[in-house]
Amino acid sequence: MTIGLDMMGGDYAPLEAVKGLQLFLLDSDAPATVFLFGDEAVLQPLLQEHAIPADRYTIVHAPQVIGMHEHPTKALKEKQQSSIAVGFYFLAQGKIDAFISAGNTGAMLVGSLYSLKSIEGVLRPTISTIIPKDNGQTGLLLDVGLNADCKPENLNQFAVLGSLYAKHILGIDNPRVGLINIGEEEGKGNILAQAAYPLLKENSRINFVGNVEGRDVLIDKADVMVCEGFTGNIILKLAESIYEITHRKDIHHSYFDRFNFENYGGTPVLGINKPVIIGHGISGARAFQNMLNLAARMVQSDLFAQMQAAFRH
Amino acid sequence: MTIGLDMMGGDYAPLEAVKGLQLFLLDSDAPATVFLFGDEAVLQPLLQEHAIPADRYTIVHAPQVIGMHEHPTKALKEKQQSSIAVGFYFLAQGKIDAFISAGNTGAMLVGSLYSLKSIEGVLRPTISTIIPKDNGQTGLLLDVGLNADCKPENLNQFAVLGSLYAKHILGIDNPRVGLINIGEEEGKGNILAQAAYPLLKENSRINFVGNVEGRDVLIDKADVMVCEGFTGNIILKLAESIYEITHRKDIHHSYFDRFNFENYGGTPVLGINKPVIIGHGISGARAFQNMLNLAARMVQSDLFAQMQAAFRH
Repeated sequence: MTIGLDMMGGDYAPLEAVKGLQLFLLDSDAPATVFLFGDEAVLQPLLQEHAIPADRYTIVHAPQVIGMHEHPTKALKEKQQSSIAVGFYFLAQGKIDAFISAGNTGAMLVGSLYSLKSIEGVLRPTISTIIPKDNGQTGLLLDVGLNADCKPENLNQFAVLGSLYAKHILGIDNPRVGLINIGEEEGKGNILAQAAYPLLKENSRINFVGNVEGRDVLIDKADVMVCEGFTGNIILKLAESIYEITHRKDIHHSYFDRFNFENYGGTPVLGINKPVIIGHGISGARAFQNMLNLAARMVQSDLFAQMQAAFRH
Repeated sequence: MTIGLDMMGGDYAPLEAVKGLQLFLLDSDAPATVFLFGDEAVLQPLLQEHAIPADRYTIVHAPQVIGMHEHPTKALKEKQQSSIAVGFYFLAQGKIDAFISAGNTGAMLVGSLYSLKSIEGVLRPTISTIIPKDNGQTGLLLDVGLNADCKPENLNQFAVLGSLYAKHILGIDNPRVGLINIGEEEGKGNILAQAAYPLLKENSRINFVGNVEGRDVLIDKADVMVCEGFTGNIILKLAESIYEITHRKDIHHSYFDRFNFENYGGTPVLGINKPVIIGHGISGARAFQNMLNLAARMVQSDLFAQMQAAFRH
């Protein structure tokens, strides 16, 4: 198994990426070689300094960097020697099995959508986030921003992708799917939610349990919660801000600690044919480690075969 | 000034409504007579037991009650002797200056929209919620559920209504208006947000400061935050659940205490010609007291004249 890691992406790259790699190699028993995309002259001394075993990595020299605020499409086109562009090229060519970056999110999304193929039958790939439930369980919310406007069938597909991810990666058996909505009963909500409800209800591939209101998001009512990316992104960033506020106000509690999104490392792009993981710009060593673990789990799991089977008609 | 109070609405009515009335009359120096809508035989002994001065209230006998789960339109039509129906009749007739209920929310909304007139020029009345900011300030979010699907001009009008409410009731000078959105720059977001942005930017009646992301909702970036009622309702109920979760987990902090929505009593319906305040079903004495205070403030303020002027063309 070969995992690609963008060493130049994120606010604390490449140092935190190297430290994360070190933690991953010490801790994980996944038989992975990590392909490191970045400037060889910068990376080589750092890797030696952190005593990373030379047989566990391959540096792929990519001298350019796409900045966090560059225009994604333009940057990917103009910087073909950037770590993100070269990483996607390697992934598309099958030279690596997964690709991870904490760099420019837009460029990672554009790369995922245009360098790789969507799973046949998937209308729109999606990104998700982990939601810590108040009883200690873990939920999945999607879409969280890739698809700001959706059609009912998009939400129905997110439910299938999210259910398979919850089962094969999060280890949740027969995950309960909820539709993010205002009001409890069928027929409530905006036009989109009203139209999505019957599709979800009739979808035999998922375990639909009905509507999930704002007050249920943090409660263990559903494992997989679907919505368009506008509402999902607002929920994600609101949840992230709760962690930041409690941190700033010196409020410490194990529940709020679970809102530290570094614990989860990054979010996979679901609905494409290969594992791509997008990290937070502020990823530290632990986030990089967790993203490497997640990538290994995604490669080793049955997730992609199951997703392809689910959309095969 | 006469304020109408539905004594039969809410899970803890009429007892908590009586206690709230008692607190209001003890504490407030507003020269208000309170019209109490409900079953006289039930109310009379309770009022005497709590030593409510007889010259401060008038009981309006309304023997029927609209239950919390009844169908709003049907219940209002069939129960014309209910406290909510009679209350709206008194308000529409000018026999009271404001009406408050913690009863069936749907019936309160239907009553507001159909018994009363909208302010001329207002396309859709709206409901809002107070958002406690992490620096101690107070924000206003609207719409929070009355309008699940909106047109760009609706959001533009919510911005005007919210700004006037923030100024005249919350005491915020020149309130900053933010558009709830995903992404910081103009042009970001879903179709609705993209179309609403230029309207807000060109609206000389408001102080528009740009987009407000999910992570900014609890931060003091904007005083008035506008969105359609789907996203707004999700944010409102998520915020309410944070209070409940911290309470349940015995996490105590003055910031989270401000998420106790009983502090704010209820939400006014904005965009109609008279003050209507809808309370939470679980309103206790303090919530009723705060709703009575809010009603008095709304009647005494310049809010309604200013709203009417703002939409006069």
